[in-house]
Amino acid sequence: MALPDKVRIVEVGPRDGLQNEAIAVSTAVKIELVERLADAGLRVVEAGSFVSPHKVPQMADTVDVFRAIARRADTSYPALVPNEQGLKAALACGVTEIAIFVSASESFSRKNINCSRAESLERLEPVADLANASGLRVRGYISCIAGCPYDGTVDVEEVALMARTLNDMGCYEISLGDTIGVGTATKVRTVINRVAATIPRERIAMHFHDTYGQGIANVLASLEEGISVFDSSVGGLGGCPYAPGANGNVATEDVLYLMEGLGIETGVDLGSVARIGDWISEVLKRPNMARAGRAILASRTVSGG
Amino acid sequence: MALPDKVRIVEVGPRDGLQNEAIAVSTAVKIELVERLADAGLRVVEAGSFVSPHKVPQMADTVDVFRAIARRADTSYPALVPNEQGLKAALACGVTEIAIFVSASESFSRKNINCSRAESLERLEPVADLANASGLRVRGYISCIAGCPYDGTVDVEEVALMARTLNDMGCYEISLGDTIGVGTATKVRTVINRVAATIPRERIAMHFHDTYGQGIANVLASLEEGISVFDSSVGGLGGCPYAPGANGNVATEDVLYLMEGLGIETGVDLGSVARIGDWISEVLKRPNMARAGRAILASRTVSGG
Repeated sequence: MALPDKVRIVEVGPRDGLQNEAIAVSTAVKIELVERLADAGLRVVEAGSFVSPHKVPQMADTVDVFRAIARRADTSYPALVPNEQGLKAALACGVTEIAIFVSASESFSRKNINCSRAESLERLEPVADLANASGLRVRGYISCIAGCPYDGTVDVEEVALMARTLNDMGCYEISLGDTIGVGTATKVRTVINRVAATIPRERIAMHFHDTYGQGIANVLASLEEGISVFDSSVGGLGGCPYAPGANGNVATEDVLYLMEGLGIETGVDLGSVARIGDWISEVLKRPNMARAGRAILASRTVSGG
Repeated sequence: MALPDKVRIVEVGPRDGLQNEAIAVSTAVKIELVERLADAGLRVVEAGSFVSPHKVPQMADTVDVFRAIARRADTSYPALVPNEQGLKAALACGVTEIAIFVSASESFSRKNINCSRAESLERLEPVADLANASGLRVRGYISCIAGCPYDGTVDVEEVALMARTLNDMGCYEISLGDTIGVGTATKVRTVINRVAATIPRERIAMHFHDTYGQGIANVLASLEEGISVFDSSVGGLGGCPYAPGANGNVATEDVLYLMEGLGIETGVDLGSVARIGDWISEVLKRPNMARAGRAILASRTVSGG
């Protein structure tokens, strides 16, 4: 299959990234992070999560972030919403796009959100209905599409079933997440093609973690299967709670570098994102996990530029 | 093109890796490293370099390494040899395979080995002749196949020309090296197919650096072009002198993880290599750059295994 001419990058660093970092950053840093990412050309920047502050303390100030950010008219700022209470909080501060979350693994669903896969879909139905009725866009996440930290393998039929259900609930896009980064190219192709037999291929986004070093290779395999939407995280923000010390989300910088090399348009300025990744890594007192970001900044230092 | 059933991994950590690390390790550590890698199933372990100790102090004890290592009958231990003096030293300590080195970039050749590309090929001809006459296997390296730190772009015709010349000199295999890690999948495919029009495809090995995070994606693209030999470095040993702080060679662990996922046979035990990568990283007091290695060891720690 021919590679797409252009792709859309969904920047998940301020939410999926930061909520998995050991150090919590200030509200001011989050606001600056979201605004700088949008200014770098990212047209979708996931900005927070309306979840219980007891469960995810890193996201406790999402309301303050949404109240403060200068929103660009050309950019969407989705927020993760687990239930109707979260949706109401999101609506109250002017969120226009939400993301809802299910897992393709039964054990992961039970341990992560305390209910079965079927129950999680039932609970989200009124959330999606109210969001759609309120004019919000709804994006669906499916986690553990290539493997589960508890069960090991995950049935691709379950992934397809959940994608179909989220699609029927009115999600405009379904992001298939390899939450623990175990997938390799052949597996990724299999999942994409099975899901694309159920929902339109252009509604599929891929969400990779670099835990086993396969993130960019899996993006490449997905491009070859006709996928043109990718989630990624500036500086590779986020870790893997199931493998402490391991890499987290695939880095936006590495994805952008791949796209530039392949001649695929992103609309995003890689140099700007590299500087943002370096800055937020320093704030978090952790290494910058974006290899392209590090290399670009290092070669500029060497050349004195 | 169908993926190959099996691949050969050429482990370059003890040579290409260690010579680009800031800290020099003891001869005893090098010996242990080479022996453990071979015991893990790697059938080609590049064990040293007979170069000037003034230019590459990290390799000054290559003679001692070759005198001491217990050599397995099923394993080859190539050494890099830049000239006839180096070849004689290699022959004196029983080396049975050498590697010779040229660059596809004129500026890189002049700055790195102080002569033009044409001169470097001329100088290597008697080395290859003597090596072949002495019953040694000769492997050729071409560096900067996807870009040069001085010139930027590199002409793919030059890569093909140098591959053809090395082939004619009697090299049984030509390793095409993206020395500064700038290549992406389309570029890699172009280079492979151009070279494969000149020499047999099965004589091409690919050698990637992960500087811009593209190493594993480029391995995948190469597999799809019918390549079945890959150079890699345990723990991602080696840096990039042109981008300090950047990643170096693609990590053997990440390559092995990809191959396992794709069902491609390597004959190498990934768990053993992960432990070797962790050990040598600790010796060098640097982070383990092998993401699959870190993830495997971390998940074992979590599960108590």
